[in-house]
Amino acid sequence: MADVTAPPPLLRRLAAEAFGTYLLVFSVLGAALFFAPDYGALPVALSIGIGVLTAAYAVGSISGGHFNPAVTLGAAVAGRVGWGVVLPYWVAQLFGGTLASLTLGLVGLLNGKSLDFAAVSNGYGEHSPSDFGLWAVFVAEIVATLFFVLIILGVTSAGSSTSGFAPLAIGLALTMFHLVMIPISNASLNPARSFAPGVLAGPDTLAQLWVFLVAPLIGGLLAGALHRPLFGDRR
Amino acid sequence: MADVTAPPPLLRRLAAEAFGTYLLVFSVLGAALFFAPDYGALPVALSIGIGVLTAAYAVGSISGGHFNPAVTLGAAVAGRVGWGVVLPYWVAQLFGGTLASLTLGLVGLLNGKSLDFAAVSNGYGEHSPSDFGLWAVFVAEIVATLFFVLIILGVTSAGSSTSGFAPLAIGLALTMFHLVMIPISNASLNPARSFAPGVLAGPDTLAQLWVFLVAPLIGGLLAGALHRPLFGDRR
Amino acid sequence: MADVTAPPPLLRRLAAEAFGTYLLVFSVLGAALFFAPDYGALPVALSIGIGVLTAAYAVGSISGGHFNPAVTLGAAVAGRVGWGVVLPYWVAQLFGGTLASLTLGLVGLLNGKSLDFAAVSNGYGEHSPSDFGLWAVFVAEIVATLFFVLIILGVTSAGSSTSGFAPLAIGLALTMFHLVMIPISNASLNPARSFAPGVLAGPDTLAQLWVFLVAPLIGGLLAGALHRPLFGDRR
Amino acid sequence: MADVTAPPPLLRRLAAEAFGTYLLVFSVLGAALFFAPDYGALPVALSIGIGVLTAAYAVGSISGGHFNPAVTLGAAVAGRVGWGVVLPYWVAQLFGGTLASLTLGLVGLLNGKSLDFAAVSNGYGEHSPSDFGLWAVFVAEIVATLFFVLIILGVTSAGSSTSGFAPLAIGLALTMFHLVMIPISNASLNPARSFAPGVLAGPDTLAQLWVFLVAPLIGGLLAGALHRPLFGDRR
Repeated sequence: MADVTAPPPLLRRLAAEAFGTYLLVFSVLGAALFFAPDYGALPVALSIGIGVLTAAYAVGSISGGHFNPAVTLGAAVAGRVGWGVVLPYWVAQLFGGTLASLTLGLVGLLNGKSLDFAAVSNGYGEHSPSDFGLWAVFVAEIVATLFFVLIILGVTSAGSSTSGFAPLAIGLALTMFHLVMIPISNASLNPARSFAPGVLAGPDTLAQLWVFLVAPLIGGLLAGALHRPLFGDRR
Repeated sequence: MADVTAPPPLLRRLAAEAFGTYLLVFSVLGAALFFAPDYGALPVALSIGIGVLTAAYAVGSISGGHFNPAVTLGAAVAGRVGWGVVLPYWVAQLFGGTLASLTLGLVGLLNGKSLDFAAVSNGYGEHSPSDFGLWAVFVAEIVATLFFVLIILGVTSAGSSTSGFAPLAIGLALTMFHLVMIPISNASLNPARSFAPGVLAGPDTLAQLWVFLVAPLIGGLLAGALHRPLFGDRR
Repeated sequence: MADVTAPPPLLRRLAAEAFGTYLLVFSVLGAALFFAPDYGALPVALSIGIGVLTAAYAVGSISGGHFNPAVTLGAAVAGRVGWGVVLPYWVAQLFGGTLASLTLGLVGLLNGKSLDFAAVSNGYGEHSPSDFGLWAVFVAEIVATLFFVLIILGVTSAGSSTSGFAPLAIGLALTMFHLVMIPISNASLNPARSFAPGVLAGPDTLAQLWVFLVAPLIGGLLAGALHRPLFGDRR
Repeated sequence: MADVTAPPPLLRRLAAEAFGTYLLVFSVLGAALFFAPDYGALPVALSIGIGVLTAAYAVGSISGGHFNPAVTLGAAVAGRVGWGVVLPYWVAQLFGGTLASLTLGLVGLLNGKSLDFAAVSNGYGEHSPSDFGLWAVFVAEIVATLFFVLIILGVTSAGSSTSGFAPLAIGLALTMFHLVMIPISNASLNPARSFAPGVLAGPDTLAQLWVFLVAPLIGGLLAGALHRPLFGDRR
């Protein structure tokens, strides 16, 4: 992802962010809605990791491959991107994630069945797969996002001799965090993943949505602040 | 897959396409016929992804590693290959996929049992694993192929700094799309995957085959047309 | 795996072949004996693929990373290695595979239970997981090994621009062939994988062992002969 | 991981070791505590492999990416790192692993339930998932760690032409050893993985902890001593 030339124009970067976030949300919600009822949560964890991995190889060289408002925030705090792109990136990410959710909803609609977005939304209490309460979910989402973004900042460091592997490591890291976090909260780590299904599933999940906007952003912010003190200025 | 030298002669490229499509169809049908009855659909999704990944590393530098008429169409629309190779590539792909289906049929025959090709064919309605209807399947196949071919065009862009990873990303992307699409239609995204089992399984699946020829080709065509406007001329 | 310098001395290459075949057999038999009874065959297919992948990254640059008499035969036929190393490689491979089988047997012995080597041996008829007969198994083993060795010769071609990925592709390819072949024959493709458990499991599997010595070698030989006519002289 | 420049200052290397060991323990214990009760042990094996893989890509270029006292010991014996870093590395690794265990314990505490650390500790006898006795576990842990550290020393050899793949191979190797070893001992191969849960789970597992401190260190020591005689001086 190291880019020695001038970055592409902003519109193209936003197209890349929307594209990647579309794939992220399509891969996780699609597997959770259609595949998981018969085969459990492992395929969901694999699907989202691969969704991010492939998107990052496909368009990561254009936009940096965030696909996640918490990553963009962390990258800005760490000085990897200018603050001016944060809001446009966030809009593109929410747009891509929402479009993916609507695509899956359309497939359900054409099939004459409404999709169970509540079952695939992030949540706590009765919306947590294993009944984790609010504060357990809140802390777990912060910690997971903190380490996820630290991984991203690490593998995309200029000092890293293995930058071609960054999309592989980032995608697989997301799979790993899902293998820990799905039972806790269905695993967000990403406001753009939580937004559309949380809204589409109705008032119950909507009332919990703030957790999955706030906690990942706190994690991303902490990661952006901690990367340099911990591992040095490698960019 | 970046090839600075002259491309290999056409016959060798066709051998590579037939070889890769053979592996693609062998991996997905073999796992679906023999492994899935005991262990479900996750191994099928992994198998086809790995089949494409390994074929692309083995012979992708010869032919470009399409192994799929929809990919060849998208590559032609995007200007990545000349229109003159489209038809020969399609023939080679159908030949490879058919040969793989016949190989598996022969193994069944030698075992004295006919294989249940209907169960592994692509289909809608009663031939869809989760009873998805025609239009849901049609739209889902177009969308999945569109994004699959956009990924392929992205990871094989000259602008990409990680071209050695293209086969990895392409193969894993196919796994991801199967983790979403198997319950919907058994996941085609590829006319050469659907052709032989659809024919061998009898009149019921044969009557549905057109969906899995037309929808993926529409998706590939759209991807070829959209790649440059979205992500720029990177080749 | 492209080696521009003089190859290491033969003894070191044999140590590498024994080491890699040890890992191959340890990974497949260990997972099949201990993990599969509770979790099925998917972990076995992943384990052997990863065993080969890691061994090939660890010592492939020393010996070429065959770990399989059928691969060595195919490489000799294709002119990749001299005929003089075939027999020494075979001995090293059988030694490594046998040592791995004995290690696992020792763990069982220390535990006071003898291991069920018959359940993890390759076989046909009542020794096939899904009751495939002799000729179905014979043909399937030839075909699978033929394509496996064609993949290996392809990814290690000098013309390949992605040679660092060869161990990845080879290991994952073996996983894929196991996702098709385990129900048929427990998946051999490799005489050194079949030898020790076939002998240790008793007269029943010993009487079937010839199939898993002969069929993979035929597949490897055919691959060695077909690679150049199909894909050209790329080395 | 080949580092042509001067190594980073010790404190930064220790931060990297603590960070990586945190991820290793978080990934294996998190998946074992939360995911495994519903979906079995395969996700646990995948999670720890990915945890190590991503940590090694993120910070391996800083510290060498050991995350395991047995690896550090083997690297010192093999002359890869100075003996002076062994103790500081061990402290950092134990610190990171303990912090990860406490994080997961905190999530459980916030949820009002204490976590079943005994179920995820390493053990023999009644603490072995498949009732393996002391000596079977002891030998298996030595052998697995011996080969694991030989793989690590192999893939990080200067002679290796594929050093960018080292974190991939190391992480996946750990997955493979878990696919063999989880039924035997819950798979340690790493004192820093065993320490905190063994202590937190109470006197029963604490009394068995010595096995998972001693056996992996013996395996690492043997690997460090055997690498050069077997495979030559490649660094």
